[in-house]
Amino acid sequence: MKKIKTADYLVKELKKLGITDFFGLPGDYNFNILDAIVKNPETNWIGCTNELNAGYAADGYARINGYGALVTTYGVGELSAVNAIAGSFSENVPVVKIVGVPATKFIKNNTLLHHNFQNPDYFAFERVYSNVTAATAFLHFENAKEEIDRVLSIMIREQKPVYIALPVDVCGALIDDESAIITPKSDENSLNEAVDHIFRLLNGAKSPIILADGLVERFKAQNEFTDFLKASNYPVTTLLMGKGLVNEEYERFLGTYQGEFMNKGAYNALKTADIVFCAGTVMSDLNTMRFSVPVNAENSINIQGTFTIVENVRYDNVLMKDVFEKLAQNVQKIDTPMPETVKFYDSWAGSSDEKLAAKNLYPLFQEFLEPNDRIFAETGIIAYAMAQLKLPEGVKLNNQILWGSIGWATPAAMGGAFANPENRTILITGEGSHQLTASEVSTMMRNGLKPVIFVVNNDGYTVERLLSNDPEDCFNDISSWNYSQLPKVFDGEVWTAQARTAGEFCEVLEQIKSIQKTKMCYVELFVDKMDVCELTRLALSGKIPAQSGI
Amino acid sequence: MKKIKTADYLVKELKKLGITDFFGLPGDYNFNILDAIVKNPETNWIGCTNELNAGYAADGYARINGYGALVTTYGVGELSAVNAIAGSFSENVPVVKIVGVPATKFIKNNTLLHHNFQNPDYFAFERVYSNVTAATAFLHFENAKEEIDRVLSIMIREQKPVYIALPVDVCGALIDDESAIITPKSDENSLNEAVDHIFRLLNGAKSPIILADGLVERFKAQNEFTDFLKASNYPVTTLLMGKGLVNEEYERFLGTYQGEFMNKGAYNALKTADIVFCAGTVMSDLNTMRFSVPVNAENSINIQGTFTIVENVRYDNVLMKDVFEKLAQNVQKIDTPMPETVKFYDSWAGSSDEKLAAKNLYPLFQEFLEPNDRIFAETGIIAYAMAQLKLPEGVKLNNQILWGSIGWATPAAMGGAFANPENRTILITGEGSHQLTASEVSTMMRNGLKPVIFVVNNDGYTVERLLSNDPEDCFNDISSWNYSQLPKVFDGEVWTAQARTAGEFCEVLEQIKSIQKTKMCYVELFVDKMDVCELTRLALSGKIPAQSGI
Repeated sequence: MKKIKTADYLVKELKKLGITDFFGLPGDYNFNILDAIVKNPETNWIGCTNELNAGYAADGYARINGYGALVTTYGVGELSAVNAIAGSFSENVPVVKIVGVPATKFIKNNTLLHHNFQNPDYFAFERVYSNVTAATAFLHFENAKEEIDRVLSIMIREQKPVYIALPVDVCGALIDDESAIITPKSDENSLNEAVDHIFRLLNGAKSPIILADGLVERFKAQNEFTDFLKASNYPVTTLLMGKGLVNEEYERFLGTYQGEFMNKGAYNALKTADIVFCAGTVMSDLNTMRFSVPVNAENSINIQGTFTIVENVRYDNVLMKDVFEKLAQNVQKIDTPMPETVKFYDSWAGSSDEKLAAKNLYPLFQEFLEPNDRIFAETGIIAYAMAQLKLPEGVKLNNQILWGSIGWATPAAMGGAFANPENRTILITGEGSHQLTASEVSTMMRNGLKPVIFVVNNDGYTVERLLSNDPEDCFNDISSWNYSQLPKVFDGEVWTAQARTAGEFCEVLEQIKSIQKTKMCYVELFVDKMDVCELTRLALSGKIPAQSGI
Repeated sequence: MKKIKTADYLVKELKKLGITDFFGLPGDYNFNILDAIVKNPETNWIGCTNELNAGYAADGYARINGYGALVTTYGVGELSAVNAIAGSFSENVPVVKIVGVPATKFIKNNTLLHHNFQNPDYFAFERVYSNVTAATAFLHFENAKEEIDRVLSIMIREQKPVYIALPVDVCGALIDDESAIITPKSDENSLNEAVDHIFRLLNGAKSPIILADGLVERFKAQNEFTDFLKASNYPVTTLLMGKGLVNEEYERFLGTYQGEFMNKGAYNALKTADIVFCAGTVMSDLNTMRFSVPVNAENSINIQGTFTIVENVRYDNVLMKDVFEKLAQNVQKIDTPMPETVKFYDSWAGSSDEKLAAKNLYPLFQEFLEPNDRIFAETGIIAYAMAQLKLPEGVKLNNQILWGSIGWATPAAMGGAFANPENRTILITGEGSHQLTASEVSTMMRNGLKPVIFVVNNDGYTVERLLSNDPEDCFNDISSWNYSQLPKVFDGEVWTAQARTAGEFCEVLEQIKSIQKTKMCYVELFVDKMDVCELTRLALSGKIPAQSGI
């Protein structure tokens, strides 16, 4: 059989999954891996400013591209990226975390090399990662091929990160050049039983409704889901993680779920439904507006990535996309009435010297959007403000509602821009979050990316001010930066601007439309310290009543 | 017994260890901890720009102050700081890592809150930290007092980081206000046996020599060690981690160990010694110049933090400072001849338009130093360049030779400046490393710190260029920043400058002497891409022969 070097095999198999850009930093234990990436004519190395940022970038890349990869050096490099990979694990973003480790003889002799402890512990960092990945592999000469195939198979099946440690000398070891990576399949019996069970339930249903969410896309079942959506004609609402999954012009779309007060139509439709068809839902506190979604196990069908639950019966080894495919083929179309619902921001019609604030900022942002934009919306006050946006066709909204790590959005947007340079990448972040990872703007510029970046400057951690005992608590203050000057310190093309009024923001948005075609646009938006959209205020102040007493 | 709130007790006990500044970021699960810090009139909250930087700052603070503390929020915050704490673990820097976690009812119900996985795993992050700390504790209402006392006792004994998870609601739980934190003591029998054994060996010695290193200071045994040094009159050399431990004017100082070629005197003295007295040594690859130190188990005495090894006999529960104290009392003074040795950089005597380079940069840096300066020297090309510096009395050199995480020095210097604002804090870093953590300069400015910062700009990761297969490998290039403009984007007082020649550097150094008294000085130093000091070149190019065949 044809042979191939281990590092080349790994890079080649990842390229088959669509990964052309590898994010990370160099280090003396990973040069051989970087060589394999650089020498493969189909793959690129994207050096980042630190490993956490590189991990976020790989996550953002995977959200747009399907899969992502992060390469670090041993110990120091990899331990800086744990949070990024944990976020990918939490939110079902399949990223392969690759680390270059010292050569075999040092591991065998337990030699005290740099990037280790005084009592060397060569497997400590793999153990760390075993808590935040679906599988880990520490390669050696005998297991390299099998272990690569094993963990990549798990990544594809679970749509979660995996970890591969690759010693310097194993990189060049020759292995069989024939992939045994497994594409997952449903268990036919289990699938048929699940679908039969679902149809028994649906066939008696008078007012079924679909509650769709982010895992539909994470498990790459968007097409099959959409077929089912159309075939069934069921009304549909989505949770915030799933916003953008349903075309927002769609006549059966009830708008994004926002609790009882902000979207009564969707709330009541769920409450009065006889069957709630949960598609890829993540029922976390912030995604459900504090567990306020009126749904229960008795009247719901729960389709998850690799299993389905119907009337408390769990069907394992059933892939989401297979379930939707079968359902779409035979579901009975219904034609229930649609409730009145306020789905989106109204057009803004204030005066141009109005201070910039949530009430004009987001409506104007909505008007700015174009089909197929890729939005990266930071955690905190920004995330909830996205709920009421009307997204044009093909727009993808990326957020991190469950993991919620501030700073994620800036490098993640960079990853997204690498994955899809044809469409606009738009980053919208609070300035507090931006400070954690702002250095990655330099990597965007160095690589000639042209995202549109909005930094909402509200003078500190506003979301924390809402949540803490006293909004004036000093620990929610941060250092004041001159944000619009920051990119000018870096190297590359950038256009920067500031806006303090609605009128200034309108002007900036108009200018971006043309400037964005040739360079990055970086805009600082000033709002008041406690300025947040209505949904953020309701959700974080506890005014949305919680079903389960949170 | 008097009662106290759990969070208040923790803060108060840490204050007793000398911790007045707590580094970290706020988050909705740690507000109660931050409240306890802010409300204690003796402690301050230092908000940082991200958790990794905060962890490095706590490490730098602990290196100067004895102990340090890092406070983060749950999951997202803490997982960003794993590398910093692992570095503290590797290098015996006692930092307590405190995390605010969700309230007890959510943990008990395994509720799906933000900052967790879809299948919530409330103890996953404690498990992560169990790999990089000496002990972990997850507090609850029943164990809070005992667990705080237990892990802080371990931190003091091992001089290593510990981890404390503190649920929101446990913060306010009342506990006994009486510390049971244990100050470690030597086992008297074991101590006496060890000392007797050492004296049996030393009394026959003709040419004993001391090889001292960083753990003497880490285990807070510097005074006792110095007493022994003086009482014995043994010649002494130090490894790089221990540079500064011995007053460099001391007549029995052989200079810093740098392998056979750069300090032949020290090398030969070790090689011909009949007893090598190893005091707090870390025999890692980079600290020993690739395992080149001519020492073996047969002729060495090995004094570590909590144990001593003599002629392959290990004495446990023996504290380093107790050993030195007893030895100092009874050791026989010797008066062996001292070899000729080149210990320090020569004064620079070139022309002022000479391009800035290692050959003039470090000699000029040496002249700039003043007694009691605190130097933070970054990993990479900078670390080895420090070996030949002549440190004035009381100067403390901080490096990270074993863990070697690039980016560490910038926030660590900030921590050091908080710990000791009276003396000058001097940061010297390569620009590649600086990029990873440069945002923390803003926190220094916000807090009115006045460090002197030298950013050596060599156009990429020079240390990696030396180590990788081809110095031109694209992955060792980085984004070009206009470093001297960077601090101007932040908020606060700063003086910036650039130097490209020896003459310009002289001028800058002269100006700093006065300016540094009122504001931060931030200087960019341009050198050639492959410019490194001789020791770096020898050590990293493998030209220093390795004893154990590395």
